[in-house]
Amino acid sequence: MITLASDFGTPYPAAMKGVLLQRTDARLVDVAHDFPRQDVRATAFWLREVLPYFPPAVHLVVVDPGVGTDRAALVVRAGEHALVGPDNGVLIPVARELADADRFDVFRVNYENADSATFHGRDVFAPAAARVHEAGVDALDGLEGVVPTEEFEDLRFPDPTVRDRSATGELLVVDDFGNAITNVPGEFLDGVDEIEVNGLSVPVEPSYAHVGPGERLVTVGSHGNVELAVNRGRGDEAFGVAASEASGGSSDKSDGVASEGPSDESTGIEVGDEIRLDTRPKR
Amino acid sequence: MITLASDFGTPYPAAMKGVLLQRTDARLVDVAHDFPRQDVRATAFWLREVLPYFPPAVHLVVVDPGVGTDRAALVVRAGEHALVGPDNGVLIPVARELADADRFDVFRVNYENADSATFHGRDVFAPAAARVHEAGVDALDGLEGVVPTEEFEDLRFPDPTVRDRSATGELLVVDDFGNAITNVPGEFLDGVDEIEVNGLSVPVEPSYAHVGPGERLVTVGSHGNVELAVNRGRGDEAFGVAASEASGGSSDKSDGVASEGPSDESTGIEVGDEIRLDTRPKR
Amino acid sequence: MITLASDFGTPYPAAMKGVLLQRTDARLVDVAHDFPRQDVRATAFWLREVLPYFPPAVHLVVVDPGVGTDRAALVVRAGEHALVGPDNGVLIPVARELADADRFDVFRVNYENADSATFHGRDVFAPAAARVHEAGVDALDGLEGVVPTEEFEDLRFPDPTVRDRSATGELLVVDDFGNAITNVPGEFLDGVDEIEVNGLSVPVEPSYAHVGPGERLVTVGSHGNVELAVNRGRGDEAFGVAASEASGGSSDKSDGVASEGPSDESTGIEVGDEIRLDTRPKR
Repeated sequence: MITLASDFGTPYPAAMKGVLLQRTDARLVDVAHDFPRQDVRATAFWLREVLPYFPPAVHLVVVDPGVGTDRAALVVRAGEHALVGPDNGVLIPVARELADADRFDVFRVNYENADSATFHGRDVFAPAAARVHEAGVDALDGLEGVVPTEEFEDLRFPDPTVRDRSATGELLVVDDFGNAITNVPGEFLDGVDEIEVNGLSVPVEPSYAHVGPGERLVTVGSHGNVELAVNRGRGDEAFGVAASEASGGSSDKSDGVASEGPSDESTGIEVGDEIRLDTRPKR
Repeated sequence: MITLASDFGTPYPAAMKGVLLQRTDARLVDVAHDFPRQDVRATAFWLREVLPYFPPAVHLVVVDPGVGTDRAALVVRAGEHALVGPDNGVLIPVARELADADRFDVFRVNYENADSATFHGRDVFAPAAARVHEAGVDALDGLEGVVPTEEFEDLRFPDPTVRDRSATGELLVVDDFGNAITNVPGEFLDGVDEIEVNGLSVPVEPSYAHVGPGERLVTVGSHGNVELAVNRGRGDEAFGVAASEASGGSSDKSDGVASEGPSDESTGIEVGDEIRLDTRPKR
Repeated sequence: MITLASDFGTPYPAAMKGVLLQRTDARLVDVAHDFPRQDVRATAFWLREVLPYFPPAVHLVVVDPGVGTDRAALVVRAGEHALVGPDNGVLIPVARELADADRFDVFRVNYENADSATFHGRDVFAPAAARVHEAGVDALDGLEGVVPTEEFEDLRFPDPTVRDRSATGELLVVDDFGNAITNVPGEFLDGVDEIEVNGLSVPVEPSYAHVGPGERLVTVGSHGNVELAVNRGRGDEAFGVAASEASGGSSDKSDGVASEGPSDESTGIEVGDEIRLDTRPKR
């Protein structure tokens, strides 16, 4: 099985599929091709959330603002999975997640004679993914044109500071529904039924429909982190998260119910900004 | 075969695919993941239009504004098909269509220990769909954790009132091309070559290109219903259909030719509103 | 293998998949379903770029503004590939590319009793693609309901005029990243490190990240042609390409970095317009 993830939109992913299908009968599964354009960090976040749900596979990942420069092409072995993509950090958080005891192996792929300098998804990474799939993850060590390396671009998401009733974290990404996802672990909300987000008081609920349509809530998202949301609306707008071109999710979907509150004017929190959460004891 | 339909956008559908592929080798086929967000009614309409073209399959459907509340999780057996999704009506119109003589069977899926309260597509419905697929539709009656029920949320689309030369119907959905689809059956247009739509006179044509670019027409759409359209343009705009967040189709695609007429100002017809069609005899 | 390409958006492609899966076990591969709506020319361009990367397959293509008129339905045999779609030119450029020595064979598909006049993708082309797949490309000559023809709508992209240091070409399409793709072959840039695009001086670079974020460049795209681009931005905006509804790529994706220069006001170059490139000798 080979999964495909990119920020290519349309129709470039099809060229990668053609290249793969010339070389392998593997099942192909699209993860997404509309990751935020050239946003390595948001893509890395989403891959870490999604790929661990897959059975062992080769994961082809192409979010690659450095295409055509001297950035390396990598294969990362993590558990029974392999990740193939550019050396810009996008593969690393999910590699840590998939690996046993944080141990993953990084290899460089030689690609001197790529057909283009602008589309390595098609000309470098898809052929490499097909080769890794056909050889098998265990055969990586001796594979021609693939060299073990200790050097690679790392990427880590920050840890929040949690102290008693307060957490200072970061807004990591905004998802396609407008939910604003922080790095604060969901356990922080245990036993809490109201919270202040940067000073704004909001109820803590198990899921969206526990408040009325258009009302704000804070909940634990499917990623296990604290998330700022609105029932049938967009949390990013209702919490004043500034529209960011690198916000971690496309936002061309609007929702059924207008949000209350400061949604029209951004209060200027951006992805990557600090978020402060202050809990109040259970009533 | 398992089909997947949701309003998830990106990249959450991939998590469902991973969960399925951990449990089954079934072929996976995407129906769509950009159904109008949290719009149970429009999704129900489209599933009824599309799923009957499939061979027998398990259809995983997740448009689920009530996730995390006490709404039930259902499996519906209809003919040789099974539908898996939330108990909010979204599965029922297509179940009627797939069933022999309107007879379909409804089962509740127990899910006390779901991993999340916010992503039952991944944690409840995808595992249930995989189980139903592996067991087979006929094995549903004795399947562990699956209980027959007579209680479920029903959903029916209204019937139009057709009298002689006049029909009073409803605007059901707007499709991705901007075609505004009514519940009036296409036979109403037999022998008619001009029609008044809420008083506006429009030609009746077999297809779009029978009028000039940008001109309005009324035709029988592929669903068999009367549809308001514009050749190479958007019928919703040209007929003054108000932009609705729950309009039954995303509309981020624009078209090649500006529409004539009252397109810039909405005349305020909305999805769910009454539409009156008055025919004139064949010239 | 059957590939699918259309301008249908959502969810109509799923109906075609259902129809195919009723008739064949072939692997189905989506090329794209968001080709610029009713834009035969842009779709023809992209198919020619993408389909040659596939192994032999039946390619189902439905961008069909003339649906329901008397335009023919075609099967085109080109090498070991077959293309199925409307007779409007969309299949021809890629047929020339796939064929040996420009020799491809065109057949008309009879379809008197199509179920609808508005959705031939589902009712005419998908059934035809399934039949061609099951029969095999070599069996086309005697296949029932399929008749060889010499008449079909041709489509050719223009050749540029290249003279010494100047090329006069055409802006063919804008891709999803905003790269504005011309018909001038990349070899025109050999040994050139600066170029004037309609009088505007721009560096020639091997790829995007060789200039700073937001800066303009001219490069050879993955299609082998000269392309106007911006590093981490949109070339179409920075070079003043007028927004066109038939621009050859959806542009609902914005990018991370604002473009410098005349991006806010279009200088009015449109897809199909002449582009003049004047090179300066290598420094």
